[in-house]
Amino acid sequence: MLDNPNSDYRILTLADLPAYLAGLPDIAAMLGGGTADWRCEDVADGNLNSVFLVDGPAGGLCVKQALPYVRVAGESWPMDVRRAFFEVSYARRMAPFVGSLAPAIHHFDAAQFIIVMEKLAPHIILRSALIAGAHHPRVPVDVADYIAAASFHTSDLAAPFETKAADQALFAGNIGLQRISVDLVFTDPYVIHERNRVTVPLAGWAAAFRADIDLKEAVTRARLAYLTHAQSLLHGDLHSGSIMVTATETRVIDGEFALIGPSGFDIGNFIAHYVMAWFAKPFHGSGPAETARFRDLLAADILVFWQRFEAQFLAHWRGFAGAADGLPASHFADPVAAARAETMRRSYVADLFRDAVMFMACKIIRRVLGFAQIADFLVIPDEVVRAQAQAAALAFARSVLLHPARYGDIAAVVAAMPRFEGAGLDPAPTRLL
Amino acid sequence: MLDNPNSDYRILTLADLPAYLAGLPDIAAMLGGGTADWRCEDVADGNLNSVFLVDGPAGGLCVKQALPYVRVAGESWPMDVRRAFFEVSYARRMAPFVGSLAPAIHHFDAAQFIIVMEKLAPHIILRSALIAGAHHPRVPVDVADYIAAASFHTSDLAAPFETKAADQALFAGNIGLQRISVDLVFTDPYVIHERNRVTVPLAGWAAAFRADIDLKEAVTRARLAYLTHAQSLLHGDLHSGSIMVTATETRVIDGEFALIGPSGFDIGNFIAHYVMAWFAKPFHGSGPAETARFRDLLAADILVFWQRFEAQFLAHWRGFAGAADGLPASHFADPVAAARAETMRRSYVADLFRDAVMFMACKIIRRVLGFAQIADFLVIPDEVVRAQAQAAALAFARSVLLHPARYGDIAAVVAAMPRFEGAGLDPAPTRLL
Ligand SMILES: Nc1ncnc2c1ncn2[C@@H]1O[C@H](COP(=O)(O)OP(=O)(O)OP(=O)(O)O)[C@@H](O)[C@H]1O
Ligand SMILES: Nc1ncnc2c1ncn2[C@@H]1O[C@H](COP(=O)(O)OP(=O)(O)OP(=O)(O)O)[C@@H](O)[C@H]1O
Ligand SMILES: [Mg+2]
Ligand SMILES: [Mg+2]
Repeated sequence: MLDNPNSDYRILTLADLPAYLAGLPDIAAMLGGGTADWRCEDVADGNLNSVFLVDGPAGGLCVKQALPYVRVAGESWPMDVRRAFFEVSYARRMAPFVGSLAPAIHHFDAAQFIIVMEKLAPHIILRSALIAGAHHPRVPVDVADYIAAASFHTSDLAAPFETKAADQALFAGNIGLQRISVDLVFTDPYVIHERNRVTVPLAGWAAAFRADIDLKEAVTRARLAYLTHAQSLLHGDLHSGSIMVTATETRVIDGEFALIGPSGFDIGNFIAHYVMAWFAKPFHGSGPAETARFRDLLAADILVFWQRFEAQFLAHWRGFAGAADGLPASHFADPVAAARAETMRRSYVADLFRDAVMFMACKIIRRVLGFAQIADFLVIPDEVVRAQAQAAALAFARSVLLHPARYGDIAAVVAAMPRFEGAGLDPAPTRLL
Repeated sequence: MLDNPNSDYRILTLADLPAYLAGLPDIAAMLGGGTADWRCEDVADGNLNSVFLVDGPAGGLCVKQALPYVRVAGESWPMDVRRAFFEVSYARRMAPFVGSLAPAIHHFDAAQFIIVMEKLAPHIILRSALIAGAHHPRVPVDVADYIAAASFHTSDLAAPFETKAADQALFAGNIGLQRISVDLVFTDPYVIHERNRVTVPLAGWAAAFRADIDLKEAVTRARLAYLTHAQSLLHGDLHSGSIMVTATETRVIDGEFALIGPSGFDIGNFIAHYVMAWFAKPFHGSGPAETARFRDLLAADILVFWQRFEAQFLAHWRGFAGAADGLPASHFADPVAAARAETMRRSYVADLFRDAVMFMACKIIRRVLGFAQIADFLVIPDEVVRAQAQAAALAFARSVLLHPARYGDIAAVVAAMPRFEGAGLDPAPTRLL
């Protein structure tokens, strides 16, 4: 299934790309013409992999190769190239459920760990749109549909348990990137670590989080949920940098972190990045009126996203007529039992919500105090001003982890955000908020 | 890793056995002498596999082969022979943690799915001892030590998560026997199913359980926990028929149901069989005084078992000094955090207890209303008398599932048992008990 990564793996350069593609007749035919007609571009902007776009007379393609190290860190941080195998396995597993919400996969090279897929154009990365203040009202709906379908259909609610067991056997091998999540999301932000990129003005917040035992207890619960709650197949890295958009289309890319885990993880990750966009907005150069207008849209997006997710997830479940072990039809056939099944479905979704809010908070914290910072904050040039925006997000995330009962529904989550705006660089005053 | 089960697999007969063993020089040497000196015996008394004991001048061996079907059901119920591979993988994974609490594995034949292991003698099956009224005070202590070591050391509390992920990848393949657990433990007892072996006097109880939506909701929670809570490597079938004993030694055998699952599952299974022995005791032919004496010992065994488990599990955890992702040392280094870590450990064990009690109840119900009945009840010749004993166990199990808050500690569990004694064949009157 997997070739030995050391066999004849070579890093593909922009110069090598045409010859490589010419060697794949079906792929070359999609581009049309010959190598001389192809325009190739290196568009890698993520942390991990090489990504090229290629245009030919007949069409365009995206070529992604896993490098044997973390791209932004270099060879000092080795990383298993098999992540490309897991990315493509995830994409293929999702395809029947999410349809056109993800790019089509055209080819996987199991020796070179290269994925050739549909080129998304004129799609842009959602994060850039959020930073530019360009609103995309389809996104929360489409991403809700994506996660609802994925988290229902790959769970034990939608199939005999053997289906998830097969996914489990496969994706349990994706330890390279799961190690990144365990370390960068759940561990490093709460200790002194050379990889953390905390700025000087946030030193007080970082120190406070390292010393906050209530917070670390809550994060332990989240980490254990990530490690032990084998609910469904997750994307594992579903933030605004893994979503490409136009005014009318939404595409989820980059499932290389895929794992069987708690369904709330992807949900929380998506919400977290809308929350951070909301906290960053006043510092993106538009005036107060535009800030207020765009923030209202973001807040509404979060509400719409969760409500749509809940409705779609429940609709999949209610409409499901196949064999499944989670809630076997044979146990819930008569009318009284059918009514109870509905109660149980709602309770299941309520549990997903609680998990999602918990993971949302963890994802915010790791993006501020950890290694992988995000452009939403980084585009704010002044370090102190940036730290003000980040501190507000941290204060909010801390409150969510310490007082989950206050965040019992999505309206409460959204309504609470403004309370943390003025949190400031001293972490103490807002700890009870 | 696994040979194709269809390649040159052959069912080993008693007659073939000497020649087979003679072909394994190291094994033959353990027996001493030659084939003519070996005394072979078929001792299969379980539901699934062939088991032979062989004695030679130098020593004895136990030879177990997985059949391509369920032994007691015959070829109409096919069953993947690879279960022997999982049994031996489980035994090898446990060996460093449980030492002499399990028989030594001498050989695994991956083509014939034959395990050659230490012959336990004069050990008898714990279930027979319980039925005979022979008390074995080491058993609860030894089994507690076994489960504590297994469930701690194979969890994310005791290792980087990659270790459990490797177990997960492997044991996710053991779907043949996990299917048995899903069906026979969590599903069939609550529906009409041809495999269920409900006796006529228990028809009312079976019907009541099929109609009890509160009960089926609780069982759904248990089933989902079994399917999704990937805490540690479980034995998966740890009842009194999987334990062999002498007055001074305890051995756990038969880990073919192994899976990564909720640690409370093995705990609950073990307790369930002491509870059923307790309910069956008055009908095993000894007088009231002997019944009372033996029941007191069983009740004390249950208390000792849980208390020992708790103490040992916590001791492993407190003493653990290696790297682990569940509760990373770096988060709990200073004295305040160290104190909190202790609180978290206790809360973790409290969760294990809640799970254990839930699984205990499920295991009792499946042994009364399902396919795999147990000798503790079956030795009671009169069907109505037997049903009285079983009904009491069912009433107790139902109460545990419907009212978990009443069973918050092990003393409450043990103290409640006598309340269900007179439950009788009408399921209605004791439903609120
Ligand atoms: N199918 C595609 N069509 C067009 N552009 C794409 C496509 N896939 C990726 N890109 C571009 O390449 C960039 C990097 O892609 P991707 O996020 O998959 O890489 P990565 O190295 O895995 O990043 P990360 O650090 O988020 O893991 C994207 O931000 C996007 O601009
Ligand atoms: N190592 C051993 N030494 C001596 N006797 C053994 C040994 N292993 C098993 N036996 C005997 O063989 C019987 C069947 O063994 P075992 O429970 O492993 O078989 P099984 O077919 O898997 O049963 P089950 O239906 O419980 O799954 C035991 O009850 C015991 O009497
Ligand atoms: Mg990526
Ligand atoms: Mg067995």
